[in-house]
Amino acid sequence: MPPVRVGLLGLGTVGGGVVNVLSRNAEDLARRAGRRIEVIHASARNLSAPRICSLDGLLLTTNPMEVVENPDVDVVVELMGGMSPASQLIRRALELGKPVITANKALIAHEGNELFELAQSQGTVVAFEAAVAGGIPIIKAIREGLAGNRIEWLAGIINGTGNFILTAMRDEGRTFADVLSEAQILGYAESDPTFDVEGIDAAHKLTILASIAFGMPLKFDAVYTEGISQLQTEDVRYARELGYQIKHLGVARRHATGVELRVHPTLIPERRLLANVDGVKNAVLVWGDAVGPTLYYGAGAGAEPTASAVVADLVDVVRTLTADPNHRVPHLAVVPDQVTDLPILPMEAVETGYYLRLTVEDQPGVLANIARILANHGINIEAMIQKEVSAETAHLPIVLLTHPLREATMNAAIDALEVLESVRSPVVRLRVESLSG
Amino acid sequence: MPPVRVGLLGLGTVGGGVVNVLSRNAEDLARRAGRRIEVIHASARNLSAPRICSLDGLLLTTNPMEVVENPDVDVVVELMGGMSPASQLIRRALELGKPVITANKALIAHEGNELFELAQSQGTVVAFEAAVAGGIPIIKAIREGLAGNRIEWLAGIINGTGNFILTAMRDEGRTFADVLSEAQILGYAESDPTFDVEGIDAAHKLTILASIAFGMPLKFDAVYTEGISQLQTEDVRYARELGYQIKHLGVARRHATGVELRVHPTLIPERRLLANVDGVKNAVLVWGDAVGPTLYYGAGAGAEPTASAVVADLVDVVRTLTADPNHRVPHLAVVPDQVTDLPILPMEAVETGYYLRLTVEDQPGVLANIARILANHGINIEAMIQKEVSAETAHLPIVLLTHPLREATMNAAIDALEVLESVRSPVVRLRVESLSG
Repeated sequence: MPPVRVGLLGLGTVGGGVVNVLSRNAEDLARRAGRRIEVIHASARNLSAPRICSLDGLLLTTNPMEVVENPDVDVVVELMGGMSPASQLIRRALELGKPVITANKALIAHEGNELFELAQSQGTVVAFEAAVAGGIPIIKAIREGLAGNRIEWLAGIINGTGNFILTAMRDEGRTFADVLSEAQILGYAESDPTFDVEGIDAAHKLTILASIAFGMPLKFDAVYTEGISQLQTEDVRYARELGYQIKHLGVARRHATGVELRVHPTLIPERRLLANVDGVKNAVLVWGDAVGPTLYYGAGAGAEPTASAVVADLVDVVRTLTADPNHRVPHLAVVPDQVTDLPILPMEAVETGYYLRLTVEDQPGVLANIARILANHGINIEAMIQKEVSAETAHLPIVLLTHPLREATMNAAIDALEVLESVRSPVVRLRVESLSG
Repeated sequence: MPPVRVGLLGLGTVGGGVVNVLSRNAEDLARRAGRRIEVIHASARNLSAPRICSLDGLLLTTNPMEVVENPDVDVVVELMGGMSPASQLIRRALELGKPVITANKALIAHEGNELFELAQSQGTVVAFEAAVAGGIPIIKAIREGLAGNRIEWLAGIINGTGNFILTAMRDEGRTFADVLSEAQILGYAESDPTFDVEGIDAAHKLTILASIAFGMPLKFDAVYTEGISQLQTEDVRYARELGYQIKHLGVARRHATGVELRVHPTLIPERRLLANVDGVKNAVLVWGDAVGPTLYYGAGAGAEPTASAVVADLVDVVRTLTADPNHRVPHLAVVPDQVTDLPILPMEAVETGYYLRLTVEDQPGVLANIARILANHGINIEAMIQKEVSAETAHLPIVLLTHPLREATMNAAIDALEVLESVRSPVVRLRVESLSG
């Protein structure tokens, strides 16, 4: 069989990683795919920039559309990131009937529905394993490996930058801002870190995971998203005293009435495997009705881990995805006419446990007032830490854990608590997930 | 499209689980596979035995060959276990060109090479996700999800019974025999527990994992296998004092000169995720050259977790495996004419760290003698625990951890130690794996 000829859009870190992996493992890949896989044409913004890979034998251009249009290119790999021109390039490739492989989570989360429809109508595919959790084959695990299950929920640490920051805040007692600066110097965080620390990147990935888990269209706009930039070091410490780790989780859960989609800092019992996933690593816990819990762990970013996922998609394209459409793994895990538009629950309807930290004046009756307000809202306290009064401020922190209850109820209770004169606003509120079923 | 009609061999726990999952998730499965999947014919040894599933609408027989030969059966699912008659039944199904799905790890480990060849020659497939690690999609993860990598090594807790026993020995300080009896009463261990506790079941699974990781034929006979039945409670305790957990690991590792294949009790640093996989759960850590470490965790046995893997294979068969042979995932991860017969290293050539426990007489010079013998063999001591002399026996336990060295060297050193008059034979020897690279 002749080699599969790849056109590569983007020669940055991940693009360079793909060139290196394809070249280093060329023999093994040919043994697996039954054909050699060769990059023949690549585009980059600046052809004289330094590269992590050799460019020997590559046709190069600054115009990515040339790569897409090159009739010798069988498969297009898009690693430029961003919405435009990636969107136009992928659409053109699909119009030409060429399979597309991309690591572009933002583009898939926002435009996946149309891209998949276009691919389907052109008899080709968009593969996007690298878009979620880097080198962990989580798309394949859910879409194929757990195909026998009704997926009930999943929860994942799906942003390595955020997890690096949380791990350092915990281990070194440092502030968010301090660790972020270090992460930027180390290259773990972008100079504009908004996508990572405000949960937007995690929301992109959660959107994709939820759609393949539940067989529903991509709904990025429906994700409730809260970042870690407001997280205080003392809450990380108090959480540990209570036996919890704080992780920035993406959670998708199916209910009779709809689906929850949310990204926020979350307290997890410290014995759970997910609570022990540290640094830049990612992990996703998936609960299927037949299999129960399964967990997938590994590198969520980086040149070669991401290249691992891109190349796996390339092998898949060669092995199976270019087969007769009746013998193909569907984009969203279910055949196109069976994708079901499930309602997304508003955050107010979601139930979780809560961690509350109130800063109160050290006066008689304060705790009784707090307890009365919580009781009036039907809220049970599961654990409490009451600290010494601070010498400087004459203020006292009270930390509470509640049983699971509806967000709407907690919102009302917090409003009532913040009205108390002896309670300083705002009340700090974090969510708790037991991850047990 | 008409439904896919399944013939089921075996209606025990797993068979019943498959019937239940196919029925409960029938709608979701049809959405994924594009066709309904229906069991139409099933065999069982005793038709009047109690079942965990409904038999409504099923044609039943005590003769499994009738199911295989039934021209209405499109796919055969073999869940009887054992070598015979499972082997004959699967061969016949393949001769008839029918895809076969099996959870039979012993059969695949022993006869997989011939079965895959037969399937290939008949233009069909044998799928065996359920044969390793129950519901964890580990075959798919390695064979497809990590297809971009050169797999360097893998290490797994792949026998739930053994892990249940080790967890209870550690948490409750009980003996192997005591916990085994309880596991038998609870139904976690067979009345003849040999396959589980002597590592044979784990060796079957390791054989399969290694072949798909390295693209080599199945070589069950080459696996070095050591069980947990000789493990002493005090070694579990000493290991913890040194910061390790003892797990029954299967390890496969690629070297320039060949491949290691071994199953034995292993000390793992307690911070590793694998060290925290407890009870009947399974997990496999896989190290690829591009992705680095990835870990897969979940239920390794049980009716519905195993059914989860069987049904995933069914969906795969419908989706992709019946496609044109050029667009199919090969049985051993590489296309048939590229399966490479790698040499298996003898255990003497393997390098690991070692845990040694010596029981010595409390005499002057004993420790000096031991240290001299180890030094003569070029063995460095990394950590040591010396305990109080036992009042009853006047014997003293000395526990040592070594740096990694060759098994042949350690064998020679142990022989020399056991010659010492003040050292009681045998010296207890366990292996240590850092799992760090």
